[in-house]
Formats: sequence, C-alpha cells, structure tokens
Amino acid sequence: MSALGDLHAPMRQPDALFAGAVAARAAEVLRPSGALQRLDDLAVWLAGWQRTTNPRIDRPVALVFAADHGVAAGGVSAYPAEITASMLNAFRSGASSINVMARQLGARVDAIDVGVGQPTEDLRYAPAMDHRRFDDAVLAGRAAVASADADVIVLGEMGIGNTTAAAAVCAALCGGDTDDWVGRGTGVDDEGLARKRDAVTVARARIAGVTDPVEVLRQVGGLELAAMAGAIVEARSRGLPLLLDGYVTAAAALPLACVNRDALAHCVAGHRSAEPGHRRVLAHLGLEPLLDLGMRLGEGSGAMAAVPLLSLACRLVTDVPTFGEWFAPE
Amino acid sequence: MSALGDLHAPMRQPDALFAGAVAARAAEVLRPSGALQRLDDLAVWLAGWQRTTNPRIDRPVALVFAADHGVAAGGVSAYPAEITASMLNAFRSGASSINVMARQLGARVDAIDVGVGQPTEDLRYAPAMDHRRFDDAVLAGRAAVASADADVIVLGEMGIGNTTAAAAVCAALCGGDTDDWVGRGTGVDDEGLARKRDAVTVARARIAGVTDPVEVLRQVGGLELAAMAGAIVEARSRGLPLLLDGYVTAAAALPLACVNRDALAHCVAGHRSAEPGHRRVLAHLGLEPLLDLGMRLGEGSGAMAAVPLLSLACRLVTDVPTFGEWFAPE
Repeated sequence: MSALGDLHAPMRQPDALFAGAVAARAAEVLRPSGALQRLDDLAVWLAGWQRTTNPRIDRPVALVFAADHGVAAGGVSAYPAEITASMLNAFRSGASSINVMARQLGARVDAIDVGVGQPTEDLRYAPAMDHRRFDDAVLAGRAAVASADADVIVLGEMGIGNTTAAAAVCAALCGGDTDDWVGRGTGVDDEGLARKRDAVTVARARIAGVTDPVEVLRQVGGLELAAMAGAIVEARSRGLPLLLDGYVTAAAALPLACVNRDALAHCVAGHRSAEPGHRRVLAHLGLEPLLDLGMRLGEGSGAMAAVPLLSLACRLVTDVPTFGEWFAPE
Repeated sequence: MSALGDLHAPMRQPDALFAGAVAARAAEVLRPSGALQRLDDLAVWLAGWQRTTNPRIDRPVALVFAADHGVAAGGVSAYPAEITASMLNAFRSGASSINVMARQLGARVDAIDVGVGQPTEDLRYAPAMDHRRFDDAVLAGRAAVASADADVIVLGEMGIGNTTAAAAVCAALCGGDTDDWVGRGTGVDDEGLARKRDAVTVARARIAGVTDPVEVLRQVGGLELAAMAGAIVEARSRGLPLLLDGYVTAAAALPLACVNRDALAHCVAGHRSAEPGHRRVLAHLGLEPLLDLGMRLGEGSGAMAAVPLLSLACRLVTDVPTFGEWFAPE
C-alpha cells in the first residue's frame, strides 16, 4: 500500500444533519425555492463538510505544489524547465497571479517544493518516480493540508511538462485516443504538440499492462501530482472541502476516483480550463465546474477564482431571512 | 424621439489608449501570454471605459428597478403581483438576496420603484405604457445611473410577470417560435406556462406591424424594462461599464442593440440564466456570459455574482509584475 493509504476503506462522510439543516433553510429563504439551486447546493455541501449550519469561507488556503519533470527534456513545453524554479520563487515572493488573487480575496498561498530542480525520470522510458519518491511526495501533500489551518483548500500546481504527465495519466486511466488527451498546455507550438502526443503514446505503451490507478500515477505522473493526490486524501480524512483547479489537478484526483468512486465527494471543480483533456476528465469524474472562462494558467488560479462563489453561496443561505423570519419577525 | 434619445447617433467610445496600455501590460505580466485571456479582456474593457491604466471595481452599485405588470392578472406567474411590493420592501430593508451579496462584496444596492402597485396595461390587449409613462420610466433609469457614484453598474430588476414581458419583447424583435422564448420564470406550473405562451402569442399578434424596436419595448415591455433601457443609455453616455443580469435585463437591452449594434459596447453579460430565452437573446446580442450557474432569481443577482471576476481581472493585470519588472527590478 502506498502513502495514500487504503483507498478502498470507507471514507469520512459529510455530516448529513448539518447539510440537511442548511438545505431546509435554503428552501425557505426569501426567494423562489430553487432559484439559486446550484449555489444552494454549494452551501449545503460546505455545511456537511464543515459540520456547521453556518458554513463560511474565512480561511481559504491555496496549496501550490511545484516539481520538475524528466519528460520536459523531450521538448513538450513552450517553456524551459528552469521556469518551474522561477515561478516557485515568484509564489514565495508573492509576485505571481495566484498571490495577487489571494490578496484580493483574503486567502493565503503556500507554495510547496516537491521536486523543483530534481526532475522525475522521463515518463517515456521509465517509471517517473520510484516508490520512495512517490510516497515522499504524497506525504508532503498530506503534511501541507495538515498544517494549512484552512476552511477550504484551493489545490494548484506548477511544473514545466506537467500537462504531458496529466495527459498520460488520463489517457491510461480513461482510455480513448491519445490525441484527445493532449493539448497545448501553456501554449506549445505544432511541433511541440506533436512531440507531446508522441511522448504520451510512448508512455502509454510502456505501461500497457498496469491496471492499478495509483501505480499509473507513479509510472507516468509527477511529484506534484502525487503530492496533490496526497493532499486530496488528507483533506478527506480531515473533512476539509477542496477546490480542484485545472487539468493537472484533475489528473491527480483521477486515480483516487478510479479506485473508489466516493473519493472526491469533498471536492468541487473550480473551473473548466481551455485544455481539451480537462473537459473530458471532468466528465469522466462527473464533476461540473463552477467557472468556464478558458483559463489555462494553473497555479490554482481557476480554483481560486471560484472562491467568491463559495462565500456568496454560504451567505445567500445563512444571511437571507426565511419567509417566516421576514413576515413574522420576533 | 423617446427619452432614450437618438440611438442612431455616434455613441461615446472607450479610450483606446488606456485599453491598449492595459492590453500591452497583460501580454507582459508574469504568466504565459493569453493564459487568462478572458479575464485580461475584461480588464482591458474596464480600462477603456474607466479611462485609466489602473481599472478597479471599488464602488459597484446594483440598480434594481421594480414595477408591476398588467399581464400578471393573466396568471402568468407562480406568484401574486403583491410580491413585487414585498420584495421592494425587502431590497430597501437590506433583507433580500441581492443585499446579502452586496454586503459580502462591498457593493451598494439602490432599489428604484418605477411602478410598483401601478401596473402597466395588460400587454395582451393594449400598449403596456403610454408615451408619457414610458419616458418617465426611462428618465428614472437615467437618473438612477446619474446619481449612482459607481465605477460599475450592476443592473437588476423585480416585477411579477416580467419574464412574460421579456419574452414578448424578445420574440417580437428576434422572431422565431414564441414557445422558444417563454420559460418558467420563477417556477410557473404547466398551466401557467401555457397561459404565458398564449399571452406572448396574443401580444405578438397585436403588434405585428410594429418595426421600431423602442416602440416594441413600449408596447409589450414594462416600466422596469424601460427604466433599464434608460439606465443602459445613461451609463453609456457617462462611459460607465455595466453588468447585465438575466433574461429581463437582456430584453431591456435588446431594443437598443436592434437600433444600433454598438449600443451595448459598455455592457458585459454577468451570467446565463436557467431561462431558455436568455440563452437565445444573449446569442442574438453576441454576448458571452461570465457565469453559467442556472441562476433564475433576477434582482441583479447573476450580475452581482460576476463582480469578483471583474475585480480579479483588474488586479491580475495591474498587480502582477511584468517579466521585465520581475527579472530586472529597479
């Protein structure tokens, strides 16, 4: 068993009493019942996981996991691998897009280095990580959640080459044409796109006999993907709601759902990215994203952009009076 | 000419220099160019209208226009007409959903009575408004914008029966099957839906010879629709950006665009509502909404929900350093 633990075991569930109480209130507040159903559902979901009739987003924390990828040497990205380290520095200096979003929204950003400058093996030719590295990354993801002091986790990543890893994981676990899973990521050109497709094709062939979804993640994923899988599992064990970002976060979540369909009950998709594979994997996961703005940055930006909707959803149930409160106040 | 003024005349334009400067900066900030294109475009749009390289959403103001409709007597709504007055009271007491959203987002709500308890004529049988009432409503809409002290207008409405008026305006101006323009609004039952379809069919037949879009608005619109058309025109004359809400606000905007395709350049669609006609009219207007969450409340709620995206879009251009600033700081 990996550091992800026994994914077949029953998982922590949301509190049905709190969720039910908030659902009942949502049906009674001063508006036509169901007029904001999708937002009401978010408030109910948060109430269940936060175990309160007063769900709130007061301490959103973005965990941005960064790592390098051996496959980047294959020319699959528009950017050199050194950019991963530069961006980690930017996250830590508060200079990147996710930091600016977090400041605007009263959120915090924790940038976690799980392999910057220490790339995985090239997933075309070898397992991306040995079991030791995989488990260390998973544990780093778990530890980041454990120390986050958050009321919602915003999951993000940075790693030149990691949409190639995401495509390999998704293609291996969902099947279908490799080309359907490979997009331009941060904007690779036609030749780079062809190399990226080839890389995923080669990786898929290499692991054709692998059936365990977690093993697929180790074979063709990446250190930040392993860390994000760990973060998702740890958030679940703590009953913490979590917002998924784009293609790479979805690819990290996918193996968990493949093992146990209930594994992502505490997760909501913040957005649907411009990457075509993201649409496919969200459909596979049965997740309907909150935003669809063609974002393709990563860093947790698409998940962070959805945070205000969660805050509004809470207030729209807790702070609007019910018809009873409004027409017959104490 | 109505109080809407000469809609054929050239209209105030955004400042191309400020817009261009923000677009240039957006292409240089510390992320792959175009990775947040849709948000960058919002910042550029705001910069042009706000005439600044530092676009901001510091004073969002929701203008919620409320009025009653003669057609409500035809059983086209799930709610009695008296609810309009109750909700106006709720807006003014800070108790409704839009007030709660505004408090969360640091926005203000101005609720403007343009005919509550003084319904229009029944649009099935007579012009909804005479010219005097129409112009008074338009002027009330213009005055509300003039005194708003806003940096973005969030346009909303309340009026039992007003999705019937919206459907009549859209069907008359866009053509097509009446049924395609008529939805359940706040949740009318099957029989009410049939009455609503009949009402729009009768109204359409009554004004079959009318070609002037503004005259269509007077004939089968409503006082809050006229006021919103006035608000849109006034915002344009002041160079104020404006967020449209749902089906009824789009129906109020439609006649302006039918007269002059440039009339809504200062408008963005905050969301796409659950009402099927809304999707159609947005497509007709060439507006791509920011949110698509099945909201069907009105009150400006779908537009208000998009306000945080505008704020984030601004900060994501102005507050993220450029590659030059980041790699070679002063």
